Amino acid sequence: MAQSDRPQDPPSGIGVVGAGSIGVAWSLVFARARRDVTLYDPDPGRRADAPGELLRRLRDLDVAGLLDEAADLIAARVQVTDELADAVGSVVYVQECAPEELALKRQLFAEMDALAPDAVVLASSSSALPISQVVEGLAGAGRCLVAHPGNPPYLLPIVEIVPAPFTRPSALETADALLSAVGMSPVVLHREVEGFVFNRLQGAVLREAYCLVRDGVVEPQDIDRVMREALGRRWSIIGPFETAELNTRGGIEAHARRLGPAYARMGAERGEDDPWTPDLVARVAAAVAHRFPRPLWEQSVEWRDRCLMALEAFRRRHPAFVTPRGDVPPGERPHGDG
Amino acid sequence: MAQSDRPQDPPSGIGVVGAGSIGVAWSLVFARARRDVTLYDPDPGRRADAPGELLRRLRDLDVAGLLDEAADLIAARVQVTDELADAVGSVVYVQECAPEELALKRQLFAEMDALAPDAVVLASSSSALPISQVVEGLAGAGRCLVAHPGNPPYLLPIVEIVPAPFTRPSALETADALLSAVGMSPVVLHREVEGFVFNRLQGAVLREAYCLVRDGVVEPQDIDRVMREALGRRWSIIGPFETAELNTRGGIEAHARRLGPAYARMGAERGEDDPWTPDLVARVAAAVAHRFPRPLWEQSVEWRDRCLMALEAFRRRHPAFVTPRGDVPPGERPHGDG
Repeated sequence: MAQSDRPQDPPSGIGVVGAGSIGVAWSLVFARARRDVTLYDPDPGRRADAPGELLRRLRDLDVAGLLDEAADLIAARVQVTDELADAVGSVVYVQECAPEELALKRQLFAEMDALAPDAVVLASSSSALPISQVVEGLAGAGRCLVAHPGNPPYLLPIVEIVPAPFTRPSALETADALLSAVGMSPVVLHREVEGFVFNRLQGAVLREAYCLVRDGVVEPQDIDRVMREALGRRWSIIGPFETAELNTRGGIEAHARRLGPAYARMGAERGEDDPWTPDLVARVAAAVAHRFPRPLWEQSVEWRDRCLMALEAFRRRHPAFVTPRGDVPPGERPHGDG
Repeated sequence: MAQSDRPQDPPSGIGVVGAGSIGVAWSLVFARARRDVTLYDPDPGRRADAPGELLRRLRDLDVAGLLDEAADLIAARVQVTDELADAVGSVVYVQECAPEELALKRQLFAEMDALAPDAVVLASSSSALPISQVVEGLAGAGRCLVAHPGNPPYLLPIVEIVPAPFTRPSALETADALLSAVGMSPVVLHREVEGFVFNRLQGAVLREAYCLVRDGVVEPQDIDRVMREALGRRWSIIGPFETAELNTRGGIEAHARRLGPAYARMGAERGEDDPWTPDLVARVAAAVAHRFPRPLWEQSVEWRDRCLMALEAFRRRHPAFVTPRGDVPPGERPHGDG
């Protein structure tokens, strides 16, 4: 029996609202995962450009060996529409990608809430606007949430799912399951906080980096280099808590005991006073132990080093990163010492 | 004429003082770069263990395809000694790797300063002790500095060179040139600051991460995941300033205008008040433009995405990172969805 003959089947298609850069990128994520996508934009120019932009990005992924199917086949799953109702009326999930303006998003979510059946989850890509402010007072506010991706979402799998206080747990579960199913790596926050987690961490680094430049400690390009050639490389394998665990014999409790006072002094120089209490450290240690059990500490350190070696071997081979005549950044002259 | 027949040649060997984990790692760095290394430790046990540990690490690198020569050949360049004078008397540069205790390092540097000819640069691997406190008052204080590596230094090329106020510029230049010549990527700080740059950035992330856990925003393991699967991956290609430049049309000035107020609010929640003034932002923008000129912004973004694609393709292929039966972290069960 053909799929169209089964009227009882729930919809499995995805609506994407807004065909700018993030909307096109989300459409790619869903279509690559074999979902039909209806992509809405009120602007004729963006509607006209979207299919070409989608295909261009898919072809780049194809060249990199990251597609399981032909680019055209994937692109054909995305239908562009000038009717909002098409993108929210018969889908299971809507990913809103409009500009970051509160009034605009409030109006848009009101329209989507009126048009979409009750079971449809409405997710905003916003990196800055808490969903509570966007949908407060709507009849369907409980099915709304933030699903904030990295940029671009098809290359950075993390997506932050952030509820309003009134978001229903079932909506969170639906978004979590669906985004996992399409290959993303969702992180569910317990509550709204400005910047979520992604930009909180990014902001902490940027603020410290600007201070170091302002205070004449180091040149800006050298901060970028410390990140690229050391911290970022290691953080692409183990996160900050995992790094503390594996950098110190005795693990994260020993790290907090031995280095905590120095980090507290550095924070105090910036006005901070947020002690790492033993309870807090113990809670973090228990979480880290799931991935890196303390009795396997030596093996974990060896595993980290093998990952770093694999990454280094890759970087030496791959022209995009290092070779003299390779695909160096546009402003960087070819040089001879790799 | 054989090298040994040329008595006028300046020494080119390296002394490493301390045969713990960092000392062995530094010995590896220098020996891999074809330098003769004299490795000193006062402890017989550490002296006995060092050659085996060195060879084990070299063999790991060999398996990863990261050696140009046989592991044995490289290991043979490292001589272990129980006489400090051997490690500092006829070398060009000394890398001190003793435990992080001020009194111990003060005593050690006094001895090294007395034993080493004037031209020998004395560098401390310390991540925490400013060299000014360690060598204050020594006759040769001007040739002393910190050269703080990542862990392990043969896989994270960054090394922070940090002068005391009295360190001679010529000593900085010697250390910078020598460490570059052996394949490291030195960053020269303009002045001492607690934590240097590496741990300042690391501390900023850890402090924010602990706050987010304490405040019930997110689970610790999800912070590590946001770092591994998004921020760290991108930061392994472009640093924090470069990320701001390429994430915002209009570059880092537009980033500071549009997102600066939100980042300032997040900082204010932690007690910080360090405004990104237009002068400061302009200075950073000028530095970033050397690698990513503004007129090539589109090409730079495409380059970033190609690097991310290459990295993703690598991660999919390499067992150390992802495959079900591959070399997953010790605490992580094999799973089927990559």
